[in-house]
Amino acid sequence: MKAGTIVGRVWATKRLSKLPSGALMEVALDDTSDTSSAERIIAFDPLGCAEGERVLVTQGSVARGWFKDANLVDALIIGSLDEEVQKQTSKSGQRRAAR
Amino acid sequence: MKAGTIVGRVWATKRLSKLPSGALMEVALDDTSDTSSAERIIAFDPLGCAEGERVLVTQGSVARGWFKDANLVDALIIGSLDEEVQKQTSKSGQRRAAR
Amino acid sequence: MKAGTIVGRVWATKRLSKLPSGALMEVALDDTSDTSSAERIIAFDPLGCAEGERVLVTQGSVARGWFKDANLVDALIIGSLDEEVQKQTSKSGQRRAAR
Amino acid sequence: MKAGTIVGRVWATKRLSKLPSGALMEVALDDTSDTSSAERIIAFDPLGCAEGERVLVTQGSVARGWFKDANLVDALIIGSLDEEVQKQTSKSGQRRAAR
Amino acid sequence: MKAGTIVGRVWATKRLSKLPSGALMEVALDDTSDTSSAERIIAFDPLGCAEGERVLVTQGSVARGWFKDANLVDALIIGSLDEEVQKQTSKSGQRRAAR
Repeated sequence: MKAGTIVGRVWATKRLSKLPSGALMEVALDDTSDTSSAERIIAFDPLGCAEGERVLVTQGSVARGWFKDANLVDALIIGSLDEEVQKQTSKSGQRRAAR
Repeated sequence: MKAGTIVGRVWATKRLSKLPSGALMEVALDDTSDTSSAERIIAFDPLGCAEGERVLVTQGSVARGWFKDANLVDALIIGSLDEEVQKQTSKSGQRRAAR
Repeated sequence: MKAGTIVGRVWATKRLSKLPSGALMEVALDDTSDTSSAERIIAFDPLGCAEGERVLVTQGSVARGWFKDANLVDALIIGSLDEEVQKQTSKSGQRRAAR
Repeated sequence: MKAGTIVGRVWATKRLSKLPSGALMEVALDDTSDTSSAERIIAFDPLGCAEGERVLVTQGSVARGWFKDANLVDALIIGSLDEEVQKQTSKSGQRRAAR
Repeated sequence: MKAGTIVGRVWATKRLSKLPSGALMEVALDDTSDTSSAERIIAFDPLGCAEGERVLVTQGSVARGWFKDANLVDALIIGSLDEEVQKQTSKSGQRRAAR
């Protein structure tokens, strides 16, 4: 998966019918340590995330497999990252088996 | 998915028979914030888009899965982006159906 | 798909038996507008293309799916680009069958 | 596969139910010889690795295929690299089982 | 496919059981004309190649499909390149149908 930040939203009125209706978010991926070259993708968002939210994205046929019917989604937001918690626990906490 | 801009069209008379007939568009992807290194792909266009149009592209086996028969397409234009609308609504908060 | 130019050919006498016999061409992809960083791939060529020829390449499981039997090809030349024609027609508007 | 180093861990309380519970590790991949541009991915860790550990990661539908049920994982830690051993054996020629 | 050069070998004693036993080679891919940014991958080697050998690698689900059983390999060495022969024949020889 990739971590990234939602930087916008796009709409496509003229579209193929197999693109499911729902939010299409523009995500700047944390692809490298060099943020100036952040990769931009458009991901389907079933979680109702907001601009600026840090998210986890899965790509390719794995993203499409989440839907029950054949569709055209190759990038899917699968979680919203708990960032504050993350920094505390990586100092204070032991490896937490399956939070 | 990736957002991009159609920058041209290509033809291939000498081709494998499983490449479906139809428009093959050259698309410069909005891949990074650095536009000088925009990735170029050739995408099949079932929507009849024009040069300069902003489009949404899906890639890999997800693109091939749109066709009923076995074929060779690994990049497909699945929508045309409503850019003017996008900027207005991201301020006014209209059309947030799926949030 | 990606457009590219054939820049060489490779041979592999020591190989797995599921790599089909046939031409293996080295292709420099038109990946970005910056040609100095052109990506190089090795693509199977069922069309009999020559060095210097401009070609269209499909990748991944879509390339493998072209073959009847299980095989190891993840990049396939699927067409030869009609470049001269392309530039004329994009001005005169001929051959716009699928628009 | 890719080799990389675990550089952190992320949590996602708000998530799709098909993302399996378990550790999600941030991995800086040894992608190029230029370490300043190391690609960052989030990989599912079934092996209980620690921060700083060198790991082997598989990606895409191959990662998803490891799970019994449909899921959303497109990057999976599949091994922990024996680095000290590697350097000794590449000199002394031990453990060359598969050569 | 990608051409590359074997630059090392890795071992992973702590591993998932579905990673088949056998050699795991580090390969520097001929990814671009700029060799300083060569992409590094870890590929399974069923051919018994040596360090410094020039090889052909297939990736993704196509690599996994070579194995009879479910497994975790997403990069596979499928051939060893005949480099000397290649340079001679690209000058002296005509396109050789299926060497």
